[in-house]
Amino acid sequence: MQKLQPFQAFLYANIPLVKHMQLRLKTIDEGCLMASAPLAPNINDKATVFGGSSAALMTICGWSLIKFNLENWHVNNDVVIHQSKIKWRRAQHDDMTIRAVTRADVSWKQLADSLKDKNRSSKIHILTQIIDQTGEVCTEMEASYVILKNKN
Amino acid sequence: MQKLQPFQAFLYANIPLVKHMQLRLKTIDEGCLMASAPLAPNINDKATVFGGSSAALMTICGWSLIKFNLENWHVNNDVVIHQSKIKWRRAQHDDMTIRAVTRADVSWKQLADSLKDKNRSSKIHILTQIIDQTGEVCTEMEASYVILKNKN
Repeated sequence: MQKLQPFQAFLYANIPLVKHMQLRLKTIDEGCLMASAPLAPNINDKATVFGGSSAALMTICGWSLIKFNLENWHVNNDVVIHQSKIKWRRAQHDDMTIRAVTRADVSWKQLADSLKDKNRSSKIHILTQIIDQTGEVCTEMEASYVILKNKN
Repeated sequence: MQKLQPFQAFLYANIPLVKHMQLRLKTIDEGCLMASAPLAPNINDKATVFGGSSAALMTICGWSLIKFNLENWHVNNDVVIHQSKIKWRRAQHDDMTIRAVTRADVSWKQLADSLKDKNRSSKIHILTQIIDQTGEVCTEMEASYVILKNKN
């Protein structure tokens, strides 16, 4: 697997909001991304996590799970978010743990081969949760992302 | 109506992400909020609007439409986002115009009276769109917000 640090550096360099939110990628494997983000830059007027921050953090974590795995198989197609459904279950008063998983098992090697062969767009479904420091799920997003056709 | 500038100053002072995204409130009336945000602080690796930024901007605009109108009737109950559904219809390459409207006509005076009398929570549905500089809707959010019971 490629390294997380260059991937996070790429996010910080190209998406200023991600740097501002201080997202930290912890681990990414084929089916799961783990990350964290502190409360301070993501706080709101009630001293809890701003709902817009949680939405933005989940959006980039789902995207990163897909993009990181595709790059691991040397696929550079653009990936974009298509739709999301978010539920804010409870207010969160502390630092965030973020977990993104694929909704179904994905064979990235097979997908990479298929993308290279057929050059069709492809859709991936991701479930992302934000968990507080007591282990409670505070916010949950189901989202679909589209791997676009290669422009070449 | 109360003034927009102090309300925006309150957002900037209490929600660092809103300041970072450079949200500018233009007008708020009983049924509609208009705002803008520049591309630069909200850009992504493809030089288009980061999907997390659009989600966060729509989240705060819907909230602001409700909060501003409630404060106009001297209601200080907390307002929180509950659920959202977002569709990203097309990539956006320029500055954003943001429009949030109530899904049904709301009599804020009646709602304010009812909140004061009964002290029950209440739910409001908002449709928010992000429009590009050619007038195309690029992103759309349907969301429900809850006006919480007063803690006193």
